[in-house]
Amino acid sequence: MRSLIKHVLTRTEATDSLEVAGWVRTRRDSKAFSFIELNDGSSLLNLQIVADANIPGYEEIHKMATGASISVKGRLIASPAKGQDWEMQASSIKLLGAVPEDYPLQKKGHSPEFLRSIAHLRPRTNLFGAAFRIRSRMAYAVHRFFQERDFIYVHTPIVTASDCEGAGEMFRVTTLPDDKISRDSEDFFEKRAYLTVSGQLEGETFACALSNIYTFGPTFRAENSHTSRHAAEFWMVEPEMAFCDLAGDMDVAEEMIKFLVKEALDGQDHDLSICEKFVDKTLRQRLEHVVEKPFQRISYTEAVKLLEASGQKFQYPVKYGLNLQSEHERWLTEEYFKQPTTVYNYPKEIKPFYMRLNEDGKTVTAMDLLVPGIGEIIGGSQREERYDVLLENFKHHKIDPEAYGWYADLRKYGTVPHAGFGLGFERLLMFVTGIQNIRDVIPFPRTPGHCEF
Amino acid sequence: MRSLIKHVLTRTEATDSLEVAGWVRTRRDSKAFSFIELNDGSSLLNLQIVADANIPGYEEIHKMATGASISVKGRLIASPAKGQDWEMQASSIKLLGAVPEDYPLQKKGHSPEFLRSIAHLRPRTNLFGAAFRIRSRMAYAVHRFFQERDFIYVHTPIVTASDCEGAGEMFRVTTLPDDKISRDSEDFFEKRAYLTVSGQLEGETFACALSNIYTFGPTFRAENSHTSRHAAEFWMVEPEMAFCDLAGDMDVAEEMIKFLVKEALDGQDHDLSICEKFVDKTLRQRLEHVVEKPFQRISYTEAVKLLEASGQKFQYPVKYGLNLQSEHERWLTEEYFKQPTTVYNYPKEIKPFYMRLNEDGKTVTAMDLLVPGIGEIIGGSQREERYDVLLENFKHHKIDPEAYGWYADLRKYGTVPHAGFGLGFERLLMFVTGIQNIRDVIPFPRTPGHCEF
Repeated sequence: MRSLIKHVLTRTEATDSLEVAGWVRTRRDSKAFSFIELNDGSSLLNLQIVADANIPGYEEIHKMATGASISVKGRLIASPAKGQDWEMQASSIKLLGAVPEDYPLQKKGHSPEFLRSIAHLRPRTNLFGAAFRIRSRMAYAVHRFFQERDFIYVHTPIVTASDCEGAGEMFRVTTLPDDKISRDSEDFFEKRAYLTVSGQLEGETFACALSNIYTFGPTFRAENSHTSRHAAEFWMVEPEMAFCDLAGDMDVAEEMIKFLVKEALDGQDHDLSICEKFVDKTLRQRLEHVVEKPFQRISYTEAVKLLEASGQKFQYPVKYGLNLQSEHERWLTEEYFKQPTTVYNYPKEIKPFYMRLNEDGKTVTAMDLLVPGIGEIIGGSQREERYDVLLENFKHHKIDPEAYGWYADLRKYGTVPHAGFGLGFERLLMFVTGIQNIRDVIPFPRTPGHCEF
Repeated sequence: MRSLIKHVLTRTEATDSLEVAGWVRTRRDSKAFSFIELNDGSSLLNLQIVADANIPGYEEIHKMATGASISVKGRLIASPAKGQDWEMQASSIKLLGAVPEDYPLQKKGHSPEFLRSIAHLRPRTNLFGAAFRIRSRMAYAVHRFFQERDFIYVHTPIVTASDCEGAGEMFRVTTLPDDKISRDSEDFFEKRAYLTVSGQLEGETFACALSNIYTFGPTFRAENSHTSRHAAEFWMVEPEMAFCDLAGDMDVAEEMIKFLVKEALDGQDHDLSICEKFVDKTLRQRLEHVVEKPFQRISYTEAVKLLEASGQKFQYPVKYGLNLQSEHERWLTEEYFKQPTTVYNYPKEIKPFYMRLNEDGKTVTAMDLLVPGIGEIIGGSQREERYDVLLENFKHHKIDPEAYGWYADLRKYGTVPHAGFGLGFERLLMFVTGIQNIRDVIPFPRTPGHCEF
């Protein structure tokens, strides 16, 4: 029975009967034996194998080059070598799959661009193995956070005829042949259909029945963006809470970020180490800071005053009524407060139709959670639960009340105050790993012109 | 601080200070007080509220009709009534959202068809509330099963240029305007792109780096099927294990099904009860049977012999080399073995290119797990890991070796035996709830002509 190397390395006692399998990272030969560093992807760490020249299978040792797959039987003994507790004394060794000389991962130090071109092989490298183990751990932590708090997971639809943000940058989904492409009523769904940009509106329908829900699924933007922060396909986490106001919304958002970061620190120690070594020397310090310090909260109006009084030269203007730009957000969280900061109550003109109008008649209950190094990581709001105000908003934002009748129904029938937010999952991963390009935290990134694999 | 009714009902002691909120299920008035059955969706069960006519807020009691939202403060006391441990004595009651008389869920006993037309409101009914709480619990159980066994969760891409099954029934994804719809090189991804039918091939690349992985995400089929078992958008669970053969694959599949069914039985008792009452009287018995009994395993060849000797009249012919039809699968698992049954080693002609050829040269290492009442719930295989055999399969199945070069690379560089399977998540939910139509276990189902909400 094969053991994962992850478990072998954390054993508390030696054993005479061990079986492992994995890929050779490096091999060193002497006359009488070879050292093999074996990795099976269950951990960043390798298991060191000592293979005597006289054991069965050793005759193929020359084929056990970097990238080759092997299985090994033998015993686990305390290692005399520094930096490792255990090593394996092989009693037999077997070549499973050799590697020809053109194996692209022979040498270290490939560029991220090159590794993206071999996205099917890059999880075999230390850094990408770590990034994708962290991604898995963070995804599970998202589920744990919400499930342990009695949130119900809802799979909102991917194909939709609605456009939550009104942004318009959507992918069309169709089965029509090219020569009949305009015949919407003959299409699969008998109307134009798109890939969702958010599960929020559908999520609200479930919160208005089951109280606390969350979505976690892929969302899509057809923006022709070539930045390091944008992908056409990415995963979003969107909780929605009935009987919840803006303050409650901010509480959940902040608690969640602390939970997720703590989970990375506690659970992915080795993987974070490699990110710290090769990507961001201050990574751990930054993450620990987030877990320990309380988050700052400030209204948009106050934030604008601080920015205006900052004496900083910004590329984009700061003025009440304008959106905060990334540079402004980063100044607030990195320079001024030096901690994660939630900005709330934005002018209604710059926010979508579904946000609740405040008593002042000027601002809506929006909130953005900003973190150092990234800027906005979460955006949310209390939703407009008043039927008449929502219908007014439809008019104002030129939204077809017919098409969104189901959404308005939530306000017509037993409406409740409710609130929610969206977390861009890849933004979280970039924050937690320090990795600067969104293409390097997604297994097979989709961006303009790129749909390989 | 508001409490979820789920937690109120499982309290071990009374309290003088309680706050709840939810939607009125029913109300009965007498002169001096009213009884309200309150539900907040956290549980199937209602909390009974006793509201004296003299408490603050009672003046709006007439508006607290079925479907209205209210919040209540008061104390929790042992209930003198049968069938409930607790009831709430209100000290104040507040109407949050009234309901006009056209509220569609006033009366009981709506048809599933009608409820599908108000999919934004149906989670407020007992049965659909239960179904979607079970869906959430099962999704979390999928993650727990794999994460506790050190499988790494991989988000395989939704938009793809590959076609895993070679089935061809795919949705196209495009941003081209209608009048330029054929200009693939000008499209967003600079080539034709589609919605994925399976994450398997991409999942294999990660298993060949990280050992044990799983995917859990939406998949799409553009089949013009109008059956109760097909949807255009559904969620799939696809584990993939390196250093694993067909027997190991069957082990994991069977262990997973037992784990998930046990989780439903242990964790969603009330919700299962309502399914049992209104959908399938034998539900619990069937599920307990699955947890307790070992599963049957039989080769395709043996299964065909049994079917031929059965004396049954089937609609479709039974013959070596033909696919097993649903009626055959159900006879095996419901009539003959009377337990879940895994059929393995199918003729290579009826299976896809990626399955491993057996020593006999005639069959491939496919396996289908069949369950009573549903038929196939899982399909999997050991994958062809031999480079030359895979290239032969490409030829035979007319697959462009250029386009799948990355997939072949896994066999070229350190190939390993590996295996995996796919679980249709909605099939599992239909099995666990007894609900017969796939449209009723998906929040907002997508089928031909249907893309509402």
